[in-house]
Amino acid sequence: MTGAARRRLVAEFLGSSLLTAVVVGSGIAAQSLSPGDVGLQLLENALATAFGLFALIVVFAHVSGAHFNPVVSAADAALGYRPWREVLTYVPAQILGCIAGAILANAMFDAPIVEWSSTERLTGPHLLGEVVATAGLILVIFSLARAGRAHLAAPAVAAYIGAAYLFTSSTSFANPAITIGRMFSDTFAGIAPSSAPGYIGAQVVGGVVGVLLVRYLHPKRLPHELTPVTDAHVNRNAA
Amino acid sequence: MTGAARRRLVAEFLGSSLLTAVVVGSGIAAQSLSPGDVGLQLLENALATAFGLFALIVVFAHVSGAHFNPVVSAADAALGYRPWREVLTYVPAQILGCIAGAILANAMFDAPIVEWSSTERLTGPHLLGEVVATAGLILVIFSLARAGRAHLAAPAVAAYIGAAYLFTSSTSFANPAITIGRMFSDTFAGIAPSSAPGYIGAQVVGGVVGVLLVRYLHPKRLPHELTPVTDAHVNRNAA
Amino acid sequence: MTGAARRRLVAEFLGSSLLTAVVVGSGIAAQSLSPGDVGLQLLENALATAFGLFALIVVFAHVSGAHFNPVVSAADAALGYRPWREVLTYVPAQILGCIAGAILANAMFDAPIVEWSSTERLTGPHLLGEVVATAGLILVIFSLARAGRAHLAAPAVAAYIGAAYLFTSSTSFANPAITIGRMFSDTFAGIAPSSAPGYIGAQVVGGVVGVLLVRYLHPKRLPHELTPVTDAHVNRNAA
Amino acid sequence: MTGAARRRLVAEFLGSSLLTAVVVGSGIAAQSLSPGDVGLQLLENALATAFGLFALIVVFAHVSGAHFNPVVSAADAALGYRPWREVLTYVPAQILGCIAGAILANAMFDAPIVEWSSTERLTGPHLLGEVVATAGLILVIFSLARAGRAHLAAPAVAAYIGAAYLFTSSTSFANPAITIGRMFSDTFAGIAPSSAPGYIGAQVVGGVVGVLLVRYLHPKRLPHELTPVTDAHVNRNAA
Repeated sequence: MTGAARRRLVAEFLGSSLLTAVVVGSGIAAQSLSPGDVGLQLLENALATAFGLFALIVVFAHVSGAHFNPVVSAADAALGYRPWREVLTYVPAQILGCIAGAILANAMFDAPIVEWSSTERLTGPHLLGEVVATAGLILVIFSLARAGRAHLAAPAVAAYIGAAYLFTSSTSFANPAITIGRMFSDTFAGIAPSSAPGYIGAQVVGGVVGVLLVRYLHPKRLPHELTPVTDAHVNRNAA
Repeated sequence: MTGAARRRLVAEFLGSSLLTAVVVGSGIAAQSLSPGDVGLQLLENALATAFGLFALIVVFAHVSGAHFNPVVSAADAALGYRPWREVLTYVPAQILGCIAGAILANAMFDAPIVEWSSTERLTGPHLLGEVVATAGLILVIFSLARAGRAHLAAPAVAAYIGAAYLFTSSTSFANPAITIGRMFSDTFAGIAPSSAPGYIGAQVVGGVVGVLLVRYLHPKRLPHELTPVTDAHVNRNAA
Repeated sequence: MTGAARRRLVAEFLGSSLLTAVVVGSGIAAQSLSPGDVGLQLLENALATAFGLFALIVVFAHVSGAHFNPVVSAADAALGYRPWREVLTYVPAQILGCIAGAILANAMFDAPIVEWSSTERLTGPHLLGEVVATAGLILVIFSLARAGRAHLAAPAVAAYIGAAYLFTSSTSFANPAITIGRMFSDTFAGIAPSSAPGYIGAQVVGGVVGVLLVRYLHPKRLPHELTPVTDAHVNRNAA
Repeated sequence: MTGAARRRLVAEFLGSSLLTAVVVGSGIAAQSLSPGDVGLQLLENALATAFGLFALIVVFAHVSGAHFNPVVSAADAALGYRPWREVLTYVPAQILGCIAGAILANAMFDAPIVEWSSTERLTGPHLLGEVVATAGLILVIFSLARAGRAHLAAPAVAAYIGAAYLFTSSTSFANPAITIGRMFSDTFAGIAPSSAPGYIGAQVVGGVVGVLLVRYLHPKRLPHELTPVTDAHVNRNAA
């Protein structure tokens, strides 16, 4: 593995870790500081996540593409922006990063370092929420990529996820790696291990729906669409 | 109908559907999670809508123009950016999309799939609110178009609607299609069918006021104003 | 008066009116919908104002410069961007616009159309707040202008005012015209006529402080600083 | 000292002062206006800080680089963007500015002008929070600088700090100068003098971690990376 490839994996690990620390940490803060209103807790959690996601995407986009999400990496490959074999290295980095981030959040808030979440979330409407949330996420990222406007991905993804926390019943995990990470914290943002496989399945379905919609809506690549979603290629060539 | 024209209709249907899912879904979440403070419910609903609208506009602008709103499509034609006959195909797609989005939100939150709203909203001050909200929306979109700054439409429209939820007494529907869609959900964001025609009439009046203001304030097109509001034309030519 | 000059005045009137409608209208909504928490009312008012201000500035910047504020127009002249005689026509348009906006907000919310505010706000700390708020506003707008970055004025001013609502004790009126307009609504955002002259005096002092700071920090104009704060000049030439 | 060098110090003093006034002032407002919900207080404080920080960075970036933070100035020198001897002049300006800003906030809200804070914050998890918060801040600023995207620093830093208020247990001071300034106000945002040295030590550790991460993730400078973090150099040459 080249130095540049290793850097990309470190970037995915670190970004996934910080993203999960934002999600879980702000969830813990919200739950303990706003005990009287769950909607306010969710608003605090959503705004922290949207703000953090914007910063993390602009920071890591030029290194690894700032996926932090196996469904995004798989869609990236399916749409021809990245070789499938790199996805196989990204996914473990993302999962380990999300677990590390949950542990970091627990440590920052003096919660048990690792504790299985007991929050059951598995219902039909929640699964529908995850399908919609994930399909929408893929639609946002790759519509911009194929229209040659990938520079808008950071604000668009942050805004989309901020909205999706509030408009889906599942609060929009939309990411298998963070779903796994969030099993490790028995707090506001946690998910019980028994609910995780259903969520992940729904996210995969949403990812497929998203890719099909992107392909239908953007059948051709405009010339400036050749810009990759990420600038990983630039670094790769430069390294 | 060409493939490109069909794609534009699918984009309008899909975008209108997702927009309504954001509005109705976040309304349901806000109402159930923040039962003690209606202002907080409205703030959650407004932020989710502003964030979602920004994402949806940047995603669909390059396909269909991202109108999601019959008054916007009509103003687009009135100001010469799009043929009237295309408006006739856009409007049904927008209305069907908004109905589908309300149903989707109901399904995600385990509410009755279709239930007429019982929220009466018809008062003089509310109608005045809708006139102001819609005139302002048209003024924002087409002032930018005629000044050659259509690339600012997404953040400007999102910010405007986020504000308008809070500064108009009607909470700024400003869109006949979403007004129809919101009849199909007896929740926070719903509107009783008996109130809808008055709202739609006020929105049409606001649209006319908005177009007149745009024409007065921007009597000439600068050279770079020739850029269309949307990039639909680009796709049309490329297809 | 040329047609272009008249359009600029209409733009200042209309923009000032809509800005005041946003401030007063969202204040009324916040006060009636969030009766239990004044901080939440102020947050709702601040977010609506920041969002609305961003939209109004991008919409009117290319017509009149989007001042909506006599202190901004005076600073614009003092720093050489606009003739003083135009300021004399802008100020009445701004004041009348702000009064009209307050009346519009009252009408939208079914409050008495005109009612003197009874909210006394005159204390030493509040006056200090207004000096700081207005000096900061001038510093933001004209530092960007003199550094050739006037395209950032809309988001920077909106963010600054959103913060200033919360970090100054006076909630940052920072604008003599809106101070006068807000006398006409006995609601959350109102100000008693007896408090207004003190506020306006403090705003003038803040404006002078702001201009002196801008002059010290940006002693030279870079070449691209020749871009005017507004694009009024463009329209003037084009008309 | 040249006129340009003096202007840079005035800019750091003034910007640090206004930043601290935003942090402390909005903290006082939040605490007194939202007494029933500490999470809501923190949200109000976080949004005011994020909005204010965005405005202050865009305003002062072209004069002094808009550091307002000794750790940022030191990292700027460590990464070769600024001579170390200038850091020695920046740091006192930042510390004095932050103290002045706390005093200004106290005066605006009619609190005792200077009063030692009694808020003890020294725990292991809080120190971990400060290490994470500061490392993340350095990572955000200098990843963008080394990738030639310093123009995104203002929104990215503002969003990052807005999130960090909510996702770290320490509420993310991440700045030794503001830590010192916040000792001077016995209010929401204050910190007891006995807790300050531990916080500052953790921030220094975070700064070192951040610089190491930046160096690892961005081993080479792309050609356009030569753009300095700030435009101070431009002014220096022009003066």
